[in-house]
Amino acid sequence: MGSFKGHALPGSFFLILGFWWSAKCILKYVCKKQKRTCHLGSKTLFYRIEILEGIVIISMALTGMLGEQFISGGPYLILYKEGQWNQLLGWHHCTMYFFFGLLGVANILCVTISSLPVSLSKLMLSNALFVETFIFQNHTHGREILDIFVHQMLALVSFLAGLLAFLEFLTRNNVLLELLRISFILLQGSWFWQVAFVLYPPSGGPAWNLSDHENIMFLTICFCWHYALAYVIIGVNYAFVTWLVKSRLRRLCSSEIGLLKNPEREHESEEEM
Amino acid sequence: MGSFKGHALPGSFFLILGFWWSAKCILKYVCKKQKRTCHLGSKTLFYRIEILEGIVIISMALTGMLGEQFISGGPYLILYKEGQWNQLLGWHHCTMYFFFGLLGVANILCVTISSLPVSLSKLMLSNALFVETFIFQNHTHGREILDIFVHQMLALVSFLAGLLAFLEFLTRNNVLLELLRISFILLQGSWFWQVAFVLYPPSGGPAWNLSDHENIMFLTICFCWHYALAYVIIGVNYAFVTWLVKSRLRRLCSSEIGLLKNPEREHESEEEM
Amino acid sequence: MGSFKGHALPGSFFLILGFWWSAKCILKYVCKKQKRTCHLGSKTLFYRIEILEGIVIISMALTGMLGEQFISGGPYLILYKEGQWNQLLGWHHCTMYFFFGLLGVANILCVTISSLPVSLSKLMLSNALFVETFIFQNHTHGREILDIFVHQMLALVSFLAGLLAFLEFLTRNNVLLELLRISFILLQGSWFWQVAFVLYPPSGGPAWNLSDHENIMFLTICFCWHYALAYVIIGVNYAFVTWLVKSRLRRLCSSEIGLLKNPEREHESEEEM
Amino acid sequence: MGSFKGHALPGSFFLILGFWWSAKCILKYVCKKQKRTCHLGSKTLFYRIEILEGIVIISMALTGMLGEQFISGGPYLILYKEGQWNQLLGWHHCTMYFFFGLLGVANILCVTISSLPVSLSKLMLSNALFVETFIFQNHTHGREILDIFVHQMLALVSFLAGLLAFLEFLTRNNVLLELLRISFILLQGSWFWQVAFVLYPPSGGPAWNLSDHENIMFLTICFCWHYALAYVIIGVNYAFVTWLVKSRLRRLCSSEIGLLKNPEREHESEEEM
Repeated sequence: MGSFKGHALPGSFFLILGFWWSAKCILKYVCKKQKRTCHLGSKTLFYRIEILEGIVIISMALTGMLGEQFISGGPYLILYKEGQWNQLLGWHHCTMYFFFGLLGVANILCVTISSLPVSLSKLMLSNALFVETFIFQNHTHGREILDIFVHQMLALVSFLAGLLAFLEFLTRNNVLLELLRISFILLQGSWFWQVAFVLYPPSGGPAWNLSDHENIMFLTICFCWHYALAYVIIGVNYAFVTWLVKSRLRRLCSSEIGLLKNPEREHESEEEM
Repeated sequence: MGSFKGHALPGSFFLILGFWWSAKCILKYVCKKQKRTCHLGSKTLFYRIEILEGIVIISMALTGMLGEQFISGGPYLILYKEGQWNQLLGWHHCTMYFFFGLLGVANILCVTISSLPVSLSKLMLSNALFVETFIFQNHTHGREILDIFVHQMLALVSFLAGLLAFLEFLTRNNVLLELLRISFILLQGSWFWQVAFVLYPPSGGPAWNLSDHENIMFLTICFCWHYALAYVIIGVNYAFVTWLVKSRLRRLCSSEIGLLKNPEREHESEEEM
Repeated sequence: MGSFKGHALPGSFFLILGFWWSAKCILKYVCKKQKRTCHLGSKTLFYRIEILEGIVIISMALTGMLGEQFISGGPYLILYKEGQWNQLLGWHHCTMYFFFGLLGVANILCVTISSLPVSLSKLMLSNALFVETFIFQNHTHGREILDIFVHQMLALVSFLAGLLAFLEFLTRNNVLLELLRISFILLQGSWFWQVAFVLYPPSGGPAWNLSDHENIMFLTICFCWHYALAYVIIGVNYAFVTWLVKSRLRRLCSSEIGLLKNPEREHESEEEM
Repeated sequence: MGSFKGHALPGSFFLILGFWWSAKCILKYVCKKQKRTCHLGSKTLFYRIEILEGIVIISMALTGMLGEQFISGGPYLILYKEGQWNQLLGWHHCTMYFFFGLLGVANILCVTISSLPVSLSKLMLSNALFVETFIFQNHTHGREILDIFVHQMLALVSFLAGLLAFLEFLTRNNVLLELLRISFILLQGSWFWQVAFVLYPPSGGPAWNLSDHENIMFLTICFCWHYALAYVIIGVNYAFVTWLVKSRLRRLCSSEIGLLKNPEREHESEEEM
């Protein structure tokens, strides 16, 4: 962190999670529309996937924490050294990763302990994103305006994603709300990459002028284009998954579904939303 | 943009859309009250109207984008020229138009692809308005206080309209919520005209003093009067549509409706809201 | 306005409305609990009361507007005079009164035109309060800090009341939400009186030091005590109305109610909220 | 107040309340899951507990108010002395305690007067927390940045807890929402202790540098760790209560429950949230 890799790593994590969640969410929605008879969403398979997801999130968080602590002159777990705080920015990042780690733990607990409410993992996601917002808000004291701006955008997008995750926690089973939240996760991922390119140009070329207000004006629209890109990714994902499910369904269970499909679909589309 | 026409054009677009949406929304509501037997809201007609609306919105967005790029010394699709950003304000406006274009695309997709949730278009409307708010917030760096104030009012009204569109997306079929959102769309339209008259007086007369705080105090109440005007427009629209539906209904299907009307109406009026 | 009376008048209006609404709201709630058999809430009586309420609100708004325009050197309906705006603060107050007048009109229309949704009056109340907030926010440019502070408190309390009225509009029939909103109306009324005493001491004694921060610290807690007072008013009102309904009910319809009362009440108390 | 003890006292109160509420909330949830047949939650016992809770909260509030007024040179109930306000900070704290006292009164009234809606106590809790936020916002004029920061964190956490209590008031019976609110209560308690250690180090050692921005950066993450601690406390509480209820249930009513448990639990876990 404080380097190109330190921003590209969380960016990649968010992009991977965004891709995966959008695929899972769309798959569930399309299967439900297609009368859920074809065993695509059996309970045990679903449980295993959730546990796997939890493990992947925990390992991402651990990677991030270890990287922050031990790579390229990190704090090496020392918080207070020689009368002053030791590399607090690194500790900030560790704390953010830690709360995403808690999300992974909650994911696993929700599946394995049946008495826990299922929406706990949504709540922990919302919490992790709010904690990220909170830390980013107190993260950029005394830096240049462009540096502050790009981190404020990160705080904004994680706040919005957290708000949507909280809304999902309150009102379940709204597929568009879930996709909207995932679009913000994707946006955050690609924006982390943008921040890496802006603050630490990897080509070795001249850095951006961090105090030029024109650059802020450009990054404002750049942020919107990243958002449009997140929409395109989700749209392509939706088209692909729908095509996949339909073609596979047609092969597996053609006859009885074919009769039911049309009227059911129409009815459900109204009930769903 | 940067001219009288550049503000009058989006103003007219919002006014047209506001008129049309209020008429459509009131028509639907009144027809539902009047027992929806008279084929005013048949499904195929409704589909065609939605597609037409989508096409109109897309052409508005395209007009805006092309106008921003190619008329009166726009950026001509060049983003970076001679070591600096090229006319970023024009690109800002293009991005705003682009997201309204996405709304038109979503409108058409929702009708043609049956597996898509119907409320997608509300979500895209909310998104387009929030993106507009976000861009207006980072749009007025280094300008005069009056210029900043009128653009902040635009940001405020688009934020409120976006919030209401999002509420509509969450809780469907509340006619007053929809009319409230439309009143903000109308307000935005007439405010764009006001901004055009304030910043670029077409008469060639003396411009407003952009640094006089008295002008801000006046525009504050002027904004409220525009809002009251939006209410008047919707009220007149409501009276006209109600009269139209009632008079036409009386001619078409007089007998059986007449018997049912009174008790039903009362019952529905409580259930509706 | 700009005088003791100009603040005491709206304060009295809000106090009267708050008293009346709390009495009406508690009466409805208690009657509903007591099995609503005793004709206390007959439809025609209810309609007449609503229309009367609307007329009273409209006359309050008219009184306020006329007072602002024609008493003690007001603008006399002249907006622009000798090259500058004429007494914009008076016009600000007129605009606020005007939107409360619209609330009265909506109250009457809701009752007389059966096709209008009933919750329109809640929406207009919320609107009037938000417009008040908006105008107060742009009202105190260049004044002393204590003056700004007391007006910001007015903006805060009208914003909160507006928010609660909007929540009521969305989720109907929550008696506590309604009482909470009314407590903010009462708070606004008593705070207007407080502002009148702070800015224009009627005794002719020395005015408060408007730039002393200690005074702000005191008015902060004073605001909370006003709020506690609003609670006391509503509590006393609740006790009185409950006692009135019970004693009157006991005389009018003793026998058949007495048998039903206890189990019903318990059941309803859970269902109600 | 203005001393170590003055911050440790409310901190302890919040920690005790947080522990107690989390235990009560988890106990209710687990009992409901385990088929609520075993008389753990009988009505009269519940009533007595609520009244006891109310009395405890009132005595806490009284302790706090009396301590603020009469210990270590407090205002001794004198508000205005020798031409200036007398120790307004002490009066600020008294007002906060007073609104928490109202919460205790509401707790008792809700149980004893059956006609009052049950959710009144949630509303009063939300109110007490919002009043606390409001007072903390106007509490730190002219102090050092670190002092302002730690009080802003208190305001933030009480605002969030108030918001969640208000959400609970609107949507009842969401156990996770309740636990989330309780986690903020616990966070507030432990943060009060942290503030006491930062501003008034009890060891007599050197105080923190109140104008060093590094300390703010550290306290930012420290705040997050406190939050994680609140999660651990609730998690341990949950595990302990679940174990307690299960082991006790197994002894008391083994046979008939054993048959019903598994299918019921699964069904309820979906319905619950």
